[in-house]
Amino acid sequence: MAENGLVQRDKVLTLESMNPWIKKVEYAVRGPIVKRAVELEKELQKGVKKPFTEVIRANIGDAHAMGQKPITFLRQVSALCMYPELLDDPNFPEDAKQKARRLLDACGGHSVGAYSASPGIELIRQDVASFIEHRDGGIPSNPDNIFLSTGASDAIVTILKLLVSGEGRSRTGVLIPIPQYPLYSAALAELNAVQINYYLDEENCWALNVGELRRALHEARKRCHPRALCIINPGNPTGQVQSRKCIEDVIHFAWEEQLFLLADEVYQDNIYAEGSQFHSFKKVLFEMGPKYSGAVELASFHSISKCFMGECGFRGGYMEVINMDPAVQEQLTKLVSVRLCPPVTGQILLDAVVNRPQPGDPSYERFNQEKQAVLSALAEKARLTEETFRQAPGFHCNPVQGAMYAFPRIHLPPRAVKAAQAQGQAPDMFFCRQLLEETGICIVPGSGFGQKEGTYHFRMTILPPLEKLQILLQKMCQFHVKFIQEYS
Amino acid sequence: MAENGLVQRDKVLTLESMNPWIKKVEYAVRGPIVKRAVELEKELQKGVKKPFTEVIRANIGDAHAMGQKPITFLRQVSALCMYPELLDDPNFPEDAKQKARRLLDACGGHSVGAYSASPGIELIRQDVASFIEHRDGGIPSNPDNIFLSTGASDAIVTILKLLVSGEGRSRTGVLIPIPQYPLYSAALAELNAVQINYYLDEENCWALNVGELRRALHEARKRCHPRALCIINPGNPTGQVQSRKCIEDVIHFAWEEQLFLLADEVYQDNIYAEGSQFHSFKKVLFEMGPKYSGAVELASFHSISKCFMGECGFRGGYMEVINMDPAVQEQLTKLVSVRLCPPVTGQILLDAVVNRPQPGDPSYERFNQEKQAVLSALAEKARLTEETFRQAPGFHCNPVQGAMYAFPRIHLPPRAVKAAQAQGQAPDMFFCRQLLEETGICIVPGSGFGQKEGTYHFRMTILPPLEKLQILLQKMCQFHVKFIQEYS
Repeated sequence: MAENGLVQRDKVLTLESMNPWIKKVEYAVRGPIVKRAVELEKELQKGVKKPFTEVIRANIGDAHAMGQKPITFLRQVSALCMYPELLDDPNFPEDAKQKARRLLDACGGHSVGAYSASPGIELIRQDVASFIEHRDGGIPSNPDNIFLSTGASDAIVTILKLLVSGEGRSRTGVLIPIPQYPLYSAALAELNAVQINYYLDEENCWALNVGELRRALHEARKRCHPRALCIINPGNPTGQVQSRKCIEDVIHFAWEEQLFLLADEVYQDNIYAEGSQFHSFKKVLFEMGPKYSGAVELASFHSISKCFMGECGFRGGYMEVINMDPAVQEQLTKLVSVRLCPPVTGQILLDAVVNRPQPGDPSYERFNQEKQAVLSALAEKARLTEETFRQAPGFHCNPVQGAMYAFPRIHLPPRAVKAAQAQGQAPDMFFCRQLLEETGICIVPGSGFGQKEGTYHFRMTILPPLEKLQILLQKMCQFHVKFIQEYS
Repeated sequence: MAENGLVQRDKVLTLESMNPWIKKVEYAVRGPIVKRAVELEKELQKGVKKPFTEVIRANIGDAHAMGQKPITFLRQVSALCMYPELLDDPNFPEDAKQKARRLLDACGGHSVGAYSASPGIELIRQDVASFIEHRDGGIPSNPDNIFLSTGASDAIVTILKLLVSGEGRSRTGVLIPIPQYPLYSAALAELNAVQINYYLDEENCWALNVGELRRALHEARKRCHPRALCIINPGNPTGQVQSRKCIEDVIHFAWEEQLFLLADEVYQDNIYAEGSQFHSFKKVLFEMGPKYSGAVELASFHSISKCFMGECGFRGGYMEVINMDPAVQEQLTKLVSVRLCPPVTGQILLDAVVNRPQPGDPSYERFNQEKQAVLSALAEKARLTEETFRQAPGFHCNPVQGAMYAFPRIHLPPRAVKAAQAQGQAPDMFFCRQLLEETGICIVPGSGFGQKEGTYHFRMTILPPLEKLQILLQKMCQFHVKFIQEYS
């Protein structure tokens, strides 16, 4: 009996009785360190004294939260669709109005409040297909193969869901890079599929090495049925940009080993390093000729959350599927229909991205200026971050060729490793926690992404405004020096 | 070898190799009949002659698609947040601006393009909690128990995911009403949980009968581990509104039998029948005293897609969880973090709904007028639909007490049943298909929602504009007469 005289009953849903696969899910990007950062923010607001005056969230690729301004044209089209009375407002440019009218005509009842078709508004799927064709130098894209989504994560999980089957040794295995973006490990845990790790080559600028793919695959075949291979290019958290040659090798490997390819290409505009260039898997596949382009099953993913847009809050994205069995594609269509449709506001913004102002349009110059300003600022910050860590003792940082992150390796003294272990913490978590408590800088330990045993890293975004980023980098280096001294 | 000289290879992902549980998923609301409706629309556009001039989609609760206008205030707040330059526009009312500023202050970087906290923006969760408290006559609501979602479907699936575990006879079973909204059967199929049907009492205005709940539960205990009970109130597709007494009985039953309750209350404003009233499960639970309110685990769901808003395209909603084991609630928080956050645009619109204009605010009158206009029009259409079917021979239609649908039973002659079976179709699908081909009216066969063996129904929305609805109902009755004659 409890104090109030009521019988204490067992809950129906407890840690013991709940879905065991959900318990295995981990997602470091919003894990305990971020929870602590939120607490610290609240303490600061309450006037609690700290050795810092603000928490800087460099843990997640959230550009607007770090002060990046939205691209005016994207928001104009969105606002016009949201509140069509604005179509009479002379302050909005004519091309934005024209695009908004065209989009509203494609919405049920001319309202963004209507459900769309489950794979997305047909007109927008056509616009996405044209965008892909243009991007890939004319290689055709079929709107029927485009599925709009609630951010890229949603689409990735949907494809993984289709791929999962079997029990015991015939359970589906999926190859993912290590370090990885933890959506992959989380989704595979939830679906009770086998995660097969292939390691990116840190000594070689995080390159993807087909020999390593082969090793991972062959070992995995002893315990599961490997059926899919995930690639993240440009890399998250590692920031490398794959060479064309490497992509060809991967496609050949997938062809040879009968693997379904998932190409996560959400950072395709975020290329900073000289000599680096984005090549889509779709384009390379088709350039390799019909032996490959008629055979290799591929799903590629894009999003409005990254690149120059950074519109994470809208939860918009798309995937293109290539060579999918038509009967499976029907199942995919059915599956997405259960959730009715992706957010129409995200679809609208996606359209404004893929069907952007062209030379001669009233919004062309401003759009391009704003886009270039974002991308140049990111390139500068990528260089600054990489250089700072390269010069700082105790860090090893590969070039940030693309994406929005640096993933430096850090030296942690054996005494720090022991102190962490004594507290039951991963050593890089131990480091990141102390960094947060002392400087207010919130970054994610490498252990949340996976790393070679005995190495320690962290992921930080390059998104804070330049002046803030400079201070942040300085503080981190100073903290590391102090940390090393403390534990030496 | 194929004609082009290339070796034909097996696909990696085929109907045989794909996830078997996905194959079992069915979702009639967007099933084959809707696919055919889309084809017919395209044929009409191309000028193909048909016995009708437009397809009327009465298959889905999509108010704006059927011509319902958005509530001005909701869209004003949304547009202001989308494009903050409008905060200087004198054409927007001051209270909308004030609310938009407050919401932007709660967004990362003052942008709806930033990710929010995974359970939703904290300020909005507080507003939702206040709204619930007010709705439920002061019973407290804790913002920590509010999780914003991507429409109600997303939240429902999330809770079901947590509940699923076990193998064979200890597999999780979930009680759902028949007829049901097919999201439930689809989610349970995908999660490989056991669907336990309890039948609503058609002869008694689709009432929920606890004797029937008990029968279903006890039978199911032989084959699975029943752990949860889903209720849809007001009913979808059946349109009934549960009495307070019935809700008490259900809560007592859940308490007695240790079941986790899922209360789908997305139609809570859509009450039309005299004497009917919406009672939230939360309120009744707390009014039953601490024996129940401290014990019964409950998740209740709401959405911006229905009621007077009809903003389906925004994919916004929330759930409130009560008496959830704190350790499980932490797992829930972790699980929603993997998808980063619900669409911020949907969160913003939800806030404008729960934190609506109050007496004295500039937008109060217009908001209320628009809201009342929508709800009165729906009430009138509910009456018209119900009366028409009640008077038409061959139909049996319960009162449309709430929600947005009629679910009449139809008489189908034995020869029609045989003709359908000869084509491998459910008899009511056979009826609905012919109706579509001959009149352009798209409705969903009862078999897509479940019904007692040997009975036939369909679900149609009451959403078309009154004049159109009148014609639609006439046409349906005429078609049914003709159909009966043809197959007698």
